Amino acid sequence: MLRLALLVLTALPLDAFAADGGDPVNTVWLVIAAALVFFMQTGFALLESGMSRSKNAVNVVMKNYMDVCLGSMVFWAVGFGIMFGVNDTGFFGTSHWLPKFEDEWSYTFLLFQIMFAATATTIASGAMAERTRYSGYLVGAIIITALIYPVFGSWVWGGFFGGKGWLAELGFVDFAGSTVVHSVGAWCALAGILVVGPRLGRFDPASGVARAIPGHNLNNVALGGFILWLGWFGFNAGSTLQADSSLGKIALNTHLAACSGAVGIFLCQSLLRKPVLLTHTINGSLGGLVAITAGCATMSPTFAVVTGLIAGMIVMVGSYLLELLQLDDAVGAIPVHGFAGIWGTLAAGLFMEGDLFNLQQVGVQAVGCIVAFLWAFPTALLTYWLLEKLIGLRASNLDQQRGLDYSEHAERGYPEFDRLPLHKPLAN
Amino acid sequence: MLRLALLVLTALPLDAFAADGGDPVNTVWLVIAAALVFFMQTGFALLESGMSRSKNAVNVVMKNYMDVCLGSMVFWAVGFGIMFGVNDTGFFGTSHWLPKFEDEWSYTFLLFQIMFAATATTIASGAMAERTRYSGYLVGAIIITALIYPVFGSWVWGGFFGGKGWLAELGFVDFAGSTVVHSVGAWCALAGILVVGPRLGRFDPASGVARAIPGHNLNNVALGGFILWLGWFGFNAGSTLQADSSLGKIALNTHLAACSGAVGIFLCQSLLRKPVLLTHTINGSLGGLVAITAGCATMSPTFAVVTGLIAGMIVMVGSYLLELLQLDDAVGAIPVHGFAGIWGTLAAGLFMEGDLFNLQQVGVQAVGCIVAFLWAFPTALLTYWLLEKLIGLRASNLDQQRGLDYSEHAERGYPEFDRLPLHKPLAN
Amino acid sequence: MLRLALLVLTALPLDAFAADGGDPVNTVWLVIAAALVFFMQTGFALLESGMSRSKNAVNVVMKNYMDVCLGSMVFWAVGFGIMFGVNDTGFFGTSHWLPKFEDEWSYTFLLFQIMFAATATTIASGAMAERTRYSGYLVGAIIITALIYPVFGSWVWGGFFGGKGWLAELGFVDFAGSTVVHSVGAWCALAGILVVGPRLGRFDPASGVARAIPGHNLNNVALGGFILWLGWFGFNAGSTLQADSSLGKIALNTHLAACSGAVGIFLCQSLLRKPVLLTHTINGSLGGLVAITAGCATMSPTFAVVTGLIAGMIVMVGSYLLELLQLDDAVGAIPVHGFAGIWGTLAAGLFMEGDLFNLQQVGVQAVGCIVAFLWAFPTALLTYWLLEKLIGLRASNLDQQRGLDYSEHAERGYPEFDRLPLHKPLAN
Repeated sequence: MLRLALLVLTALPLDAFAADGGDPVNTVWLVIAAALVFFMQTGFALLESGMSRSKNAVNVVMKNYMDVCLGSMVFWAVGFGIMFGVNDTGFFGTSHWLPKFEDEWSYTFLLFQIMFAATATTIASGAMAERTRYSGYLVGAIIITALIYPVFGSWVWGGFFGGKGWLAELGFVDFAGSTVVHSVGAWCALAGILVVGPRLGRFDPASGVARAIPGHNLNNVALGGFILWLGWFGFNAGSTLQADSSLGKIALNTHLAACSGAVGIFLCQSLLRKPVLLTHTINGSLGGLVAITAGCATMSPTFAVVTGLIAGMIVMVGSYLLELLQLDDAVGAIPVHGFAGIWGTLAAGLFMEGDLFNLQQVGVQAVGCIVAFLWAFPTALLTYWLLEKLIGLRASNLDQQRGLDYSEHAERGYPEFDRLPLHKPLAN
Repeated sequence: MLRLALLVLTALPLDAFAADGGDPVNTVWLVIAAALVFFMQTGFALLESGMSRSKNAVNVVMKNYMDVCLGSMVFWAVGFGIMFGVNDTGFFGTSHWLPKFEDEWSYTFLLFQIMFAATATTIASGAMAERTRYSGYLVGAIIITALIYPVFGSWVWGGFFGGKGWLAELGFVDFAGSTVVHSVGAWCALAGILVVGPRLGRFDPASGVARAIPGHNLNNVALGGFILWLGWFGFNAGSTLQADSSLGKIALNTHLAACSGAVGIFLCQSLLRKPVLLTHTINGSLGGLVAITAGCATMSPTFAVVTGLIAGMIVMVGSYLLELLQLDDAVGAIPVHGFAGIWGTLAAGLFMEGDLFNLQQVGVQAVGCIVAFLWAFPTALLTYWLLEKLIGLRASNLDQQRGLDYSEHAERGYPEFDRLPLHKPLAN
Repeated sequence: MLRLALLVLTALPLDAFAADGGDPVNTVWLVIAAALVFFMQTGFALLESGMSRSKNAVNVVMKNYMDVCLGSMVFWAVGFGIMFGVNDTGFFGTSHWLPKFEDEWSYTFLLFQIMFAATATTIASGAMAERTRYSGYLVGAIIITALIYPVFGSWVWGGFFGGKGWLAELGFVDFAGSTVVHSVGAWCALAGILVVGPRLGRFDPASGVARAIPGHNLNNVALGGFILWLGWFGFNAGSTLQADSSLGKIALNTHLAACSGAVGIFLCQSLLRKPVLLTHTINGSLGGLVAITAGCATMSPTFAVVTGLIAGMIVMVGSYLLELLQLDDAVGAIPVHGFAGIWGTLAAGLFMEGDLFNLQQVGVQAVGCIVAFLWAFPTALLTYWLLEKLIGLRASNLDQQRGLDYSEHAERGYPEFDRLPLHKPLAN
């Protein structure tokens, strides 16, 4: 009985999804959900740029923008086939590169999955902001989208055109991707910040204590957070891949977990008598959203609130932990997408409606989380290490001081307002 | 005949709404509409922050953000039951706190109503901006969401699970909430600004003449206005609570009233040979949107244009009136949501298609408007007065001068651009 | 066979569109698509304002905002009848001014078409930014919406209530308006910049070489670009005018062309060893979006990628061409909407699935493009020339130096941050 529920959730049920059953409402819903997930890229761009200094504003936005452009094309050409192609081994798909379909529904599915891939890709950009060179970063993004994300994805959601992923066979549940999308992205980010190292001046050279580097536009951070939250309705409720009456509860759980994530970090910081920063609050919500992503379809709203509340706390603790370890995550992407992603994946097993606190299921969930780390982190580490050796990933100290907008883009974000060095002469 | 129409409009028809009738298009539509109403919070945050000075930018945004987070949780736990629970007396609901539902449709309905509640709550934040302390404000927001809004709401829209509100019994019509949401929010705002008093320097101490306090980012004001307009399509057309072919006309009326609201204020100011400010123009549109909210489903487009046009004029006159009375509404929330809300509620009676200029109906509408004021204003006044006495609501003059971002949040909105005092040292 | 396909695409099929067939999913989809197209105005406003100097930020946004407000009302009152009314001659409609409908579906159709008209209107605003007077601009916008756009529109999409446009009879295909909306808007923009002339200092008086005038807020440019991209899902996939399973492929083609448009300009600039500016990149995407608009429903995704890639290159070449000709298009609207629009209209013929490289069809497409120019450019030129003579279109040199926000609006975009001259005293 439980087993049956898991099958429905983890493997994409072929019959239901191979066609929209002649009812265009499924297409309408999935196209809108895809558009909402696309809009999340706007949220990432604004949030990450707002949390950076103005001398890197153009660079941060351009990375996000090209993540979408390159990532979508690469996933369409290569990643989709690896992730959803015929998957006889359970370890990767082997069909549907540059796909052409007979049925129109598959194009809708492809569109939605392209948006997901771009989301996974862009997570690293924020963590590595303000000291990563543009060209190296983009090559890394292509490799994440073409290989690292779709291979792991095929283990959980694979086999759309036949076969089934091995983690799905194990009974691993991840409805909309706390692990598949968010944690995988976060482990790539972790690898990235290990390779590029911290921003110049982030840690006191003597004591190793972290120094705050305030972002240049907190209104944009809030706007980005709001847009991500909005997009998440498409991310989670769209993962039904069809229009049915369960959408409402999924969206409600998503919303409540975002609310309680912010409240969780608020309570923590207040108890510690520390100021509750806007950046913390928004990361708390995002942690709640990441955490509810795995179990949004199988929890009651009360447990969604609990999941979010704890996720907010985890984001805070995780942020301090990274600082202690002198790891410089410029926007908190690893606590939000990685640590809250683990918690959410476990919570999906722990709080499954009708099967609460099934520890066996929680064990399977833990296996999935560990496997995700063991796959994504080393491959991303190797990728970024090679990029650092081959084309250079870390910007020089001088370029960091002047800002990457100066050194990489020949354009300034706010030329009338800032007090930055004059520009390299425009060729044009 | 008219009576029948009113029944359909004012009470939520139980049979139609207790389930989505097996057609998932209803769920799809209501989830999307809820997401659009959620996005309105982004609009409020940007509009209010942009109309404030940069030294309060973080504070304004944080109030809006926490309005959503706290408001949604409180309405889910308490407010929803009061507003929509079994309502035998007609004065409040008495069931469905922390609701668990058998059917999935009710979760969708709950989600949509949570977004409405958060909208009503956040109206006060803009009016009270730049001199209200964070903690006191948030407690006030909780009380609005848990009590003031849902009790009045139960009188008009109550009885989803049995019973009916007493104003609905009277024949009061408010399709999407010109009065239920917007005026109620505005009367809470009016109570708030009476208690906190005007911003330091807003009125000349000698003559009492108002001094302009320009907002710090008018592009964000426009962006906020656009987003509110966008969200209003969900607010009004979503209030059908089901997917039917009437949506198009409702959305058209909504759009035309927003257009003519801006034109109304443009005409007025031009005739008076005064400059037509961007802030005026956008408030004119918002006034049009508030006004069409009550009657958007029962008017012809021509009357929607008239409703919006007059609403724009009312917003302008109302703004001058508040200044004359030395009431400091930092963003014009009371003219937009309160005065235009009254006008729209009357217009819904006046311009009802098939029953134009029915003065008896207009009388019922007036009763509803008066009742809304008599309920919301005194309760909110008492709430804010108690908060001022117990925990302090008005920020000190020194804190207002330094900005609430300094005194309340230890974070600055634009640390690289402004010329504000240095910060309290970050604990972190 | 081909002929039949063309009929389906170019003329709005009366039977399918005159009613939603009792299925509310069509209404839901078209209302959402209309809301997305509305949101594109926000994108235009932010993109154009961000590409301008801060002293004109309010002016740029106000032009876009009033384009929507005035344009929607004018198109509702006059333009809709000309474009879609009974069209016996094939050259203009003659019914349905200030329309009242029996069926609700027509209101939905009207709403969607209002949003399209406002899009066509607003294209000129960006090109003419920073030196065009507000009042003259708005009168021009009204004439575009009331006359220039709907007359041409009636030739291609006309006859919703009977009759058929003459270009549609010829076999001209423009699914969502690469020519009907975008090129027509761009030719109006071209006429506008010829009449108002270049911004003060844009071209070196001696050599005629263009000088870069950097925009004041590139984060807003990116945000505007993202929002336009988002809105385009409604623009293109909404042009089905009904919910069917073809939406997914249309949206996919739209997305891929936007991606490859950015990549196209990136490749070009890199080969030329020039910096790839954020503004270029985003205009590349927009060029891809404009180009795919005509053929999004009839191309395979591979050709959508090709269409976008070439569009990006055309945008770049077109921008240099305008500079050589000393034509000052402040945001690149003419390359994006005009040149890429021509290319996309031809590509719709060239890459039609099942009928590739049909040169006869390409010829018909070319005729449509030429006709669009021959209609829109002279009429707009006459309009703007008359406006310049009658009420003055070009702002004086002094006003340009001080900024139009000072001379036209008595409001500043960022009063705390800029170093602009003090304001005209506010009347209020």
